[in-house]
Amino acid sequence: MRLYDYHRSSAAYRVRIALNLKGLPYEHAGVNLLEGGDREPAYRALNPQGLVPALADDGRLLTQSLAICEYLEETHPRPPLLPADPVGRARVRALALLVACDIHPLNNLRVLGYLTGRLGVAEEAKLEWYRHWILEGFAALERLLEESPDTATFCHGDRPTLADLCLVPQVYNARRFDCDLKPFPNITRIDATCRTLPAFHAARPEAQPDAG
Amino acid sequence: MRLYDYHRSSAAYRVRIALNLKGLPYEHAGVNLLEGGDREPAYRALNPQGLVPALADDGRLLTQSLAICEYLEETHPRPPLLPADPVGRARVRALALLVACDIHPLNNLRVLGYLTGRLGVAEEAKLEWYRHWILEGFAALERLLEESPDTATFCHGDRPTLADLCLVPQVYNARRFDCDLKPFPNITRIDATCRTLPAFHAARPEAQPDAG
Repeated sequence: MRLYDYHRSSAAYRVRIALNLKGLPYEHAGVNLLEGGDREPAYRALNPQGLVPALADDGRLLTQSLAICEYLEETHPRPPLLPADPVGRARVRALALLVACDIHPLNNLRVLGYLTGRLGVAEEAKLEWYRHWILEGFAALERLLEESPDTATFCHGDRPTLADLCLVPQVYNARRFDCDLKPFPNITRIDATCRTLPAFHAARPEAQPDAG
Repeated sequence: MRLYDYHRSSAAYRVRIALNLKGLPYEHAGVNLLEGGDREPAYRALNPQGLVPALADDGRLLTQSLAICEYLEETHPRPPLLPADPVGRARVRALALLVACDIHPLNNLRVLGYLTGRLGVAEEAKLEWYRHWILEGFAALERLLEESPDTATFCHGDRPTLADLCLVPQVYNARRFDCDLKPFPNITRIDATCRTLPAFHAARPEAQPDAG
């Protein structure tokens, strides 16, 4: 498998963790989003959206981090990234989607570029925007974690799931942008626990070949 | 089952189509997003994020439209919303997530409210923002549909899938905001075909009890 990757892409970070947790080796192919690697014709020909991550497996190119993780789950079920029962699976997917749909898309490079470029938003207001969506999303996520008896060592039970794969990269981003994480004790506890695991540790942005 | 719903929420629209396709009756509970129904303490107590849709089933509240659809797929497999093979499932999920992560979150009411409120963005620039993300996402979606031999009557093969459930509500939004859809012949063809099906027709915003 070959992963089209950018070390700071938090969607790619999710897939790196999934591949590591499942013990699947992969080849790294860097797409430098900051230097326009996503707009290069060769990459666009392969992946029309130009986003990362994309995973080449068996002659097919798979896109969208959560679709890739579900694919890995179906093709390499052990260890599982989702619990066995439908209600638990729905909870894990909802926690993952809270990050993937309600926080992360608003803070993408392309969105921040539109704000400061076309809309002329000042740097400080851009940072406020960034933090606003993290804090709003984390407030909901924290409450969902706090109130559920299913929250344990990880977001759901005692092994990492798709929800933790989304949580850790989002906390990484929150730290990079100096968000105050004190109001989120469950989130920060789970993040710290995850980061002690080799699969998460090896997936961190600083450890990637394109981290420079 | 009880669906917490708002007729114009395109995430809720997806779940309405899924319930209809699977022939599952449900009770409608209106949450008026325009009038602050999402901030009402009673609804927030039930659903901390305050978003719609949420589905109450068997004493549990499920959130996030795609997690709800996957839950319905697992608990009521017929007719399927996903193909049987992992590569096909990954393609359908990727098309769905392209809409659900890369287009829709940027055009939510809460985001538009932040733009015009806190950032003081003018009405015309807000509309441009709205159309920009639809057109950028649809350009990628159209190419993925155009280039794949799996595209047929619907986004993937000859029966509606999770991808069509996301496509139709997004096209509805695009029309409401006067996006030019001529560059997207596959998208508009599939949308028109879907809307002839009773499950899609009954799920349209105008047909909902809270449409007023």
